[in-house]
Amino acid sequence: MGNTDQSHPSPNTYNFNSSSSGASHRVGIPPPQPFVKSLKNTLKETLFPDDPLRQFKNQPTRKKFALAQRYVFPILEWGPRYTLEFFKADLIAGITIASLAIPQGISYAKLANLPAIQGLYSSFVPPLIYAMMGSSRDVAVGTVAVGSLLTGSMLSAAVNPVENPTLYLHLAFTATLFTGIFEAALGIFRLGFIVDFLSHATIVGFMGGAATVVCLQQLKGIFGLDHFTHDTDVISVLRSVFSQTHQWRWESAVLGLCSKKKPNMFWVSAMAPLTSVILGSLLVYLTHAEKHGVQVKGINPTSIMDMEFGSKYLTTAIRTGIVTGVIALAEGIAVGRSFAMFKNYNIDGNKEMIAFGFMNIAGSFTSCYLTTGPFSRTAVNFNAGCKTAVSNIVMAFAVMLTLLFLTPLFHYTPLVVLSSIIIAAMLGLIDYEAAIHLYHVDKFDFLVCMSAYVGVVFANIEIGLVLAVGLSILRVLLFVARPRTLVLGNIPDSKVYRSVEQYPNTNNVPGVLILEIDAPIYFANSSYLRERISRWIDDEEDKLKSSGETEMQYVILDMSAVGNIDTSGISMLDEVKKIMDRRSLKLALANPGAEVMKKLNKAKFIEKIGQEWLFLTVGEAVGACNYLMHTQCKQKLSDEDSQKYSNNV
Amino acid sequence: MGNTDQSHPSPNTYNFNSSSSGASHRVGIPPPQPFVKSLKNTLKETLFPDDPLRQFKNQPTRKKFALAQRYVFPILEWGPRYTLEFFKADLIAGITIASLAIPQGISYAKLANLPAIQGLYSSFVPPLIYAMMGSSRDVAVGTVAVGSLLTGSMLSAAVNPVENPTLYLHLAFTATLFTGIFEAALGIFRLGFIVDFLSHATIVGFMGGAATVVCLQQLKGIFGLDHFTHDTDVISVLRSVFSQTHQWRWESAVLGLCSKKKPNMFWVSAMAPLTSVILGSLLVYLTHAEKHGVQVKGINPTSIMDMEFGSKYLTTAIRTGIVTGVIALAEGIAVGRSFAMFKNYNIDGNKEMIAFGFMNIAGSFTSCYLTTGPFSRTAVNFNAGCKTAVSNIVMAFAVMLTLLFLTPLFHYTPLVVLSSIIIAAMLGLIDYEAAIHLYHVDKFDFLVCMSAYVGVVFANIEIGLVLAVGLSILRVLLFVARPRTLVLGNIPDSKVYRSVEQYPNTNNVPGVLILEIDAPIYFANSSYLRERISRWIDDEEDKLKSSGETEMQYVILDMSAVGNIDTSGISMLDEVKKIMDRRSLKLALANPGAEVMKKLNKAKFIEKIGQEWLFLTVGEAVGACNYLMHTQCKQKLSDEDSQKYSNNV
Repeated sequence: MGNTDQSHPSPNTYNFNSSSSGASHRVGIPPPQPFVKSLKNTLKETLFPDDPLRQFKNQPTRKKFALAQRYVFPILEWGPRYTLEFFKADLIAGITIASLAIPQGISYAKLANLPAIQGLYSSFVPPLIYAMMGSSRDVAVGTVAVGSLLTGSMLSAAVNPVENPTLYLHLAFTATLFTGIFEAALGIFRLGFIVDFLSHATIVGFMGGAATVVCLQQLKGIFGLDHFTHDTDVISVLRSVFSQTHQWRWESAVLGLCSKKKPNMFWVSAMAPLTSVILGSLLVYLTHAEKHGVQVKGINPTSIMDMEFGSKYLTTAIRTGIVTGVIALAEGIAVGRSFAMFKNYNIDGNKEMIAFGFMNIAGSFTSCYLTTGPFSRTAVNFNAGCKTAVSNIVMAFAVMLTLLFLTPLFHYTPLVVLSSIIIAAMLGLIDYEAAIHLYHVDKFDFLVCMSAYVGVVFANIEIGLVLAVGLSILRVLLFVARPRTLVLGNIPDSKVYRSVEQYPNTNNVPGVLILEIDAPIYFANSSYLRERISRWIDDEEDKLKSSGETEMQYVILDMSAVGNIDTSGISMLDEVKKIMDRRSLKLALANPGAEVMKKLNKAKFIEKIGQEWLFLTVGEAVGACNYLMHTQCKQKLSDEDSQKYSNNV
Repeated sequence: MGNTDQSHPSPNTYNFNSSSSGASHRVGIPPPQPFVKSLKNTLKETLFPDDPLRQFKNQPTRKKFALAQRYVFPILEWGPRYTLEFFKADLIAGITIASLAIPQGISYAKLANLPAIQGLYSSFVPPLIYAMMGSSRDVAVGTVAVGSLLTGSMLSAAVNPVENPTLYLHLAFTATLFTGIFEAALGIFRLGFIVDFLSHATIVGFMGGAATVVCLQQLKGIFGLDHFTHDTDVISVLRSVFSQTHQWRWESAVLGLCSKKKPNMFWVSAMAPLTSVILGSLLVYLTHAEKHGVQVKGINPTSIMDMEFGSKYLTTAIRTGIVTGVIALAEGIAVGRSFAMFKNYNIDGNKEMIAFGFMNIAGSFTSCYLTTGPFSRTAVNFNAGCKTAVSNIVMAFAVMLTLLFLTPLFHYTPLVVLSSIIIAAMLGLIDYEAAIHLYHVDKFDFLVCMSAYVGVVFANIEIGLVLAVGLSILRVLLFVARPRTLVLGNIPDSKVYRSVEQYPNTNNVPGVLILEIDAPIYFANSSYLRERISRWIDDEEDKLKSSGETEMQYVILDMSAVGNIDTSGISMLDEVKKIMDRRSLKLALANPGAEVMKKLNKAKFIEKIGQEWLFLTVGEAVGACNYLMHTQCKQKLSDEDSQKYSNNV
């Protein structure tokens, strides 16, 4: 150090001479914060980013209680302001979605290998709960194809729904209960951000894959095959389709195609299913094609006693519940959020989770299975001009009436029509434009999307999800493990320094290497950064040697983008400092953030490099270096002069 | 947009008037790079950060071949330059570490529940391989306590070493083979960075925990107990110690304490073990205390035929091999690196992995088990003044001589002396100062360290590691999932804008909110950032309302620290833009990086906010906003004047 210090006078002097900077420009070391306080802040930011208790601040206890009630039951908030105009709109919307809900409910129930009636039950109780607790005005509650398919595939793996229907049904209820508990818990413990890890790309690929699988599954119905595989992957499905060509039924195929063409306008597609169901049923009644029965049962019977806590399949139920819960939440919240965007209101993710959770818990007690806010139904609801969650209540009562009086109608509903309804709904979910957009904007997101799609289509839903989420997380880790380091240059006639790659018109400062580190310095990247920085120095020195310019004397690390640092990172900086001392280079840091300063200070690193080598901006750092190099030159010259002088004497 | 645009004239005009900025200051959109090229760069940075092929650039093929040879066998590089002085130094160092290697080898073999002779074998062949392939001059190869313990605990779980010694031994060889293959593969596929995920904090906690466990295990020897638990956790160990108090042997305890006191100087600690072994053996020979036999067997017999590929324990062997491999690598490379630091030379992580890998493969074929570069032995080697890897060769031959002629000496080695040697070695590994340092500098690292320690001590080694690594990764994910957003203010008499928290003397710009985002904008944080940004805006507007200042008109996002963005992030920015349009606020971006610009451009987001709302620095953005607000005021005034005029008329 001693030597290097001599050859490098401290820039203090500069700091005082130069006009462009002064004492005020010293890099601030934030005052030490009590650990508990900082911990509290971190937890608050992590778990309460939306600051839900804000409204409760300085309110009388009475008011607080009222607010709390409204917080849990938003209906208390908008209920009093509810008008007749609203009701008219909600009535229409409610009937529209009911007309969609009934056939969809039946079809999706089949995906879950459940009796069709469960699908109808699931459109009665849960919507009522959501109407009271949900914070979205547009979400229409009901069963979802993907969730149903997932339930079906995961439970069928453990119990055969054909051989042992009761146990299977009860397991479905149990799974739904756990879904509800899981969702509510996530909301209550403010862990909503877990859903964020399902990225946009993942959901696109996943939905597309699931839709493809569902469509393939429907070939059974379209071709009217009796035996069909229970696997969901393309290969085994296609095999079991083409292995039975002799069984293909032309009439069902035709019937399917007729009712399959997908209308564009929402209300048409909303009415279409019901119409096609009725027509189809009539047609079947006349032609006596294959039947698919729904027994009349009245409204939801209780199923509290049906939970399979004792059985050895409990773990299956729990696993199913949690996996489907995550998917259902992801879809429900994404849907709610996107429609809230249209109408310019915010919805609270954690609150939504609690609502979804309780709606599923209540559902599991009343013979319903997994429900959420499906995209298709919500879109119809929104487009039919719903104003509040009352449209859900309307739908619920419409379904109730159906349950009480109209179910005989479904006695003749042909499988093929249901299949075609599902396919029509599914085709809308294969969003290839989005995939193309991903490809153009972000190749890695496209990769994630494709891996989700391929995983779901060729293996199964879980593998697809794990693949996609794993990749997305890997990307985050790689971003930190391999941060970009940029060489900065000076932008002409300014004190600004920017990446020479991005701004080719920058000119570099002779004798000074300026590096920007583009990520927090953590254990995961500390050794890489050490290697990389010394490599930058090598390259620079090679370049200078070849061009014979002034040798390098200073290295400035621009820490603006270094959000945080850990102990491994600090020891990395230590090593870099040592390496530079060996090469008699001086290390300067520009604009280290508060967190970083705090840690560097505690680790005594600032003492090591010297407070005077910390600068507020790269510009000032370069200024100081130039000043010092200048003074050195003068010194050298004067030394030479004095020598000449002595020689002359 | 139309309206907002009217109320906000474009800042173009400003850009041309203002002196401090001009056309040259436009934010550059990097030229579109062919996907393959960028992918190539990414892969290069990820897998070849140290650019190993650098030296091969523009060399004749002949030279290239020679270089390649040297790359694989560094001995070819330094061998020719080897001198007699070097040899003298290496000879002394070699003998010193041999004197440590022999008793350590025996003791550690016991930790792995292997015959003591395996410990000696393991100090013969592997060092020779490493001497040829290793790139470190200081690493002394041998077995390690932690690795041995890990092998012991993991294999004993599957096979009882007492009942089925041969199978157990063969499993150990198989595990070692897989360790070797795994390590070599990591090196060859350039996956060295996986080791980086064992952070400094993790290793400190892990070593301490392992050392504690090992010490506890030695109580068996110290108290001369016959029956002892095979579990490694504190509770069961202490139970089995105090359940047999009646068996405690005072003489062995005394003997242990005598040979246990830990000397400070390295060469003493280097000689101490051998001396204590010899003395101990004599003492035992005279007092006829318990015996611990080592059969004379000559040098390493081959064990290629002993691999247990067929057996049902293969998976256990593979798991053990990989887990121990990771640990061994982590220690070996960390040790090599730290001593290379002292002598100012670099070692190549991937190269080291290949060396360690082949040394273990060769070892597994010659009756050796897991070896690496243990800290204690390397430290002794370094301190004894080794110059090159030749000291390993010397040690190997010293051990060979021992194997051939001296093993009878160990016939009487008392268990207690070995135990005390181990304990002495272990106590050095419990680095509580480091833990305290962690606590002071970085609470989270301390948490990681402690979780590793507690996990290892109270559960087992794997749980401890998984816990610590999981926490470390969670931290990285949380950093990205909950990035800090900072409000910036202007630093007096400068164009610099910094966090108001860190620099309390900053003054904020009326009518403008400046936010800095401190992490890449990814799926994991996009929804959080949306919430947070709108909350910042709310807070600011509340503040302004209460203080009755000029209302907010502009929001500037400082993107300097945003290293990258994905499609979820872009749609988040879209939503933020919409939110602001609704509140008739203008959004400006300052200093977006190359990656970000590329993606924003592809996603057409730049068109949406308008190229003129991108600024090189926060300063320029603020300048533009002020200019616009000023012109607006003037406009308003003139309008009022004209109105007055018309009124007057």
